[in-house]
Amino acid sequence: MPVLAVCMNPALDREFYVNDFTIDKLHRLTTKNSRMTPGGKGINVAVDLAAFGIKSIVTGFIGGYLGEVLLSELRNTSELITTNFVHIEEEIRENIAIIDEKNHTLTEINSSGPSVPLEDFQHFLRRFNLISPNVSMIVISGSLPLGIPNSIYGELTKVAKKYNKPIFWEARDEIITESLKVSAPLVLKPDFRREKKLFGRTLESEKDYIDAGKEVIRFGVKMAVLSYKIDYDIIVTEDGVWFLRPLIEIEHSHLLGTGDTYMAAMIYKYFETNDLIEIAKYGYAAALAKTWYKTKVPPKLDDVKKALEKFKIERVE
Amino acid sequence: MPVLAVCMNPALDREFYVNDFTIDKLHRLTTKNSRMTPGGKGINVAVDLAAFGIKSIVTGFIGGYLGEVLLSELRNTSELITTNFVHIEEEIRENIAIIDEKNHTLTEINSSGPSVPLEDFQHFLRRFNLISPNVSMIVISGSLPLGIPNSIYGELTKVAKKYNKPIFWEARDEIITESLKVSAPLVLKPDFRREKKLFGRTLESEKDYIDAGKEVIRFGVKMAVLSYKIDYDIIVTEDGVWFLRPLIEIEHSHLLGTGDTYMAAMIYKYFETNDLIEIAKYGYAAALAKTWYKTKVPPKLDDVKKALEKFKIERVE
Repeated sequence: MPVLAVCMNPALDREFYVNDFTIDKLHRLTTKNSRMTPGGKGINVAVDLAAFGIKSIVTGFIGGYLGEVLLSELRNTSELITTNFVHIEEEIRENIAIIDEKNHTLTEINSSGPSVPLEDFQHFLRRFNLISPNVSMIVISGSLPLGIPNSIYGELTKVAKKYNKPIFWEARDEIITESLKVSAPLVLKPDFRREKKLFGRTLESEKDYIDAGKEVIRFGVKMAVLSYKIDYDIIVTEDGVWFLRPLIEIEHSHLLGTGDTYMAAMIYKYFETNDLIEIAKYGYAAALAKTWYKTKVPPKLDDVKKALEKFKIERVE
Repeated sequence: MPVLAVCMNPALDREFYVNDFTIDKLHRLTTKNSRMTPGGKGINVAVDLAAFGIKSIVTGFIGGYLGEVLLSELRNTSELITTNFVHIEEEIRENIAIIDEKNHTLTEINSSGPSVPLEDFQHFLRRFNLISPNVSMIVISGSLPLGIPNSIYGELTKVAKKYNKPIFWEARDEIITESLKVSAPLVLKPDFRREKKLFGRTLESEKDYIDAGKEVIRFGVKMAVLSYKIDYDIIVTEDGVWFLRPLIEIEHSHLLGTGDTYMAAMIYKYFETNDLIEIAKYGYAAALAKTWYKTKVPPKLDDVKKALEKFKIERVE
C-alpha cells in the first residue's frame, strides 16, 4: 500500500540564479538559470519517498495557474507519486528564491497562499476519510493555508488511528500545540526553521529541548525528533533520551530540504522495522547524506548507508 | 476586419509589490500584492486596441507553462482579442518586476526567452500568409526570440504588401536596420527605450534625430515617429518635419507602456483618416493620456480627447 503524504499548502518553488543581484537594476537571465519545482513539505517528502522507491499519494489543496504547473511537474517527477488534491479557486503559494552565488546571498519573496473555503475543506475531509484505510502510513507535513484550523493535524490523526495507521508529523509550533490537544502521532518532528519554539516556549538550553520532548511524549507521541540544522539532535521516546551528533563537518549551505528527507527516510525504514531508534538513526543519516549534494535532490540510498557511519548516538537518560 | 498584431516574443509580466525590498532577506507578500499579466509589445497593442473597441488577432510564438498562463489571461482580457499563436516547446519569457513603492526602486529579472525551431518558424510564415488577406491592418512590435532573423519585419511586410495592408512597426534598431533592407512599413516608430540608436548610430542632437528620420523615409516608410519618453517627439514624412511638445508636466514614473498605446492609437485613428500627421497627433495624445494613470491600463478615449489639447505641434521643415 502507498504512503499518504498530506501537503495542505503546496507551493511552486522558483529559483533564479542571478550573479551580482542589485536593487533598482534590470537583470537578464537565460532559461538555464531559472527553475520551477513542486514544493511544500508534504510534497517534498513524497518526492524523496519516490527516490527511495516508495509509492505515495499526495493530497491537500491546489489551485490557480501555479497549481496547474505544480501538478504537471509533480506528475513528471516520478510514476510512484499519485496526486489526489482538492481543487480550489485561488492561486497556491509561490516561493521565489533569487540566488546570487557570487556574493552568497539568498533573497526570497514568498506569497501568502490561498484561503480555503469551508466547502472545499469539508470536501478534503471526506476524501481523507476515504483514502486513509487504503494506505500503509500517513505523513502530514508543512504549513496550512488560511481557512484551515491549526488543530487539523490532530483531527486527521484521530481519523487515521481508527484504521491503525502509523502517523508522522512535521510542523511548526502553533500547529503542534493545537493538534496535540486532539490526537498524537507516532513520530513528531517540530519544524524549528523559523523559530525554535515548542508549546509557545523558546528552546535554548539542552534541558529546554529534553523537557519539551518529554512533554510531547506525555501527549501520547511515541517519538519526538528535535532537530535543528542536524548538528545536535535529540530523540525522546517513552524509554529514554538520545543525542545524535555528526562526526563530520556539515555544509550548512546545503541544509535546504534536509527536514523532509529526514521524514521520508524514517518512513522508509519503518517498512523494515518498528524499532523507533533505528528509524531515527536512518532519518538522521539520510539528512546528513543530503547535505553532500548542492542541489535540491534526494540522497542516494548508498550515501545514506555511508552516512550511518558518520555520526554517533549516545543515550543520556 | 480585425487588426493583426504580431508579437513574436510574448512574455508573462509579473509584478511584485514589496516595500523595503532588501537583498539576502525573506519577504512575505499577500496575493493582492502580486500580478500576472500578458506582455510583449504586440500583445500590449492588442490590449489597448481592445480598450478602444477594436478587434484584433494576435499571433507569434507561445510555449511552456508561462505561455499557457499568458493565453488564458489574454483570453480573459477582452472578447475583441483572438489568439492565433504557433505553439513551441520552450517557455516564453517571464519579466519579473519587484516594485518597492516606499523606496521608489524597480528591480527587474527578465528571462531570455525561447529558441524557435526552424519548423515552427516555417509554420508561422505559412500561417501569416493565410491570415494577412483577412485583416484590415498589421502591427508588428517588439523583440524576437532566438531562431528568428532580424529581417523578419521586412519579410512579413513584403507578404502583407501583396494584399495592400497598412503596416505599422515598433522595434529596436537591429530589427529596423535589417528589415528595412527587405521592405518598408507605412509607419515606423523606433523603440528607443534601451538605446537611442538608429542605423547603428547613437542619436544625440536634434539634427541626429531629423537625419535618421529622413533616412527612414528614403527606405520607403511613409512616416517615422521618433519618440523618447514623449517629451520631445519628432515626426518625419515625405512632406516635412514636425515637433510635438507637451504643454504639461509628464509623470515619468508612469511611462510604462506608453509606446504601445501610441501605436494602438495611431492604428485606431487610421480607421478614420489617412492623414498621417493626424494619426501621429492622436498617438501622441493617447501616450500622454496614459501617463495620467498609475497602473498598466489603457487610457480612456475621453482622456485621449482631453490630451489632444495638452501639447503643441510645430512644423520645422
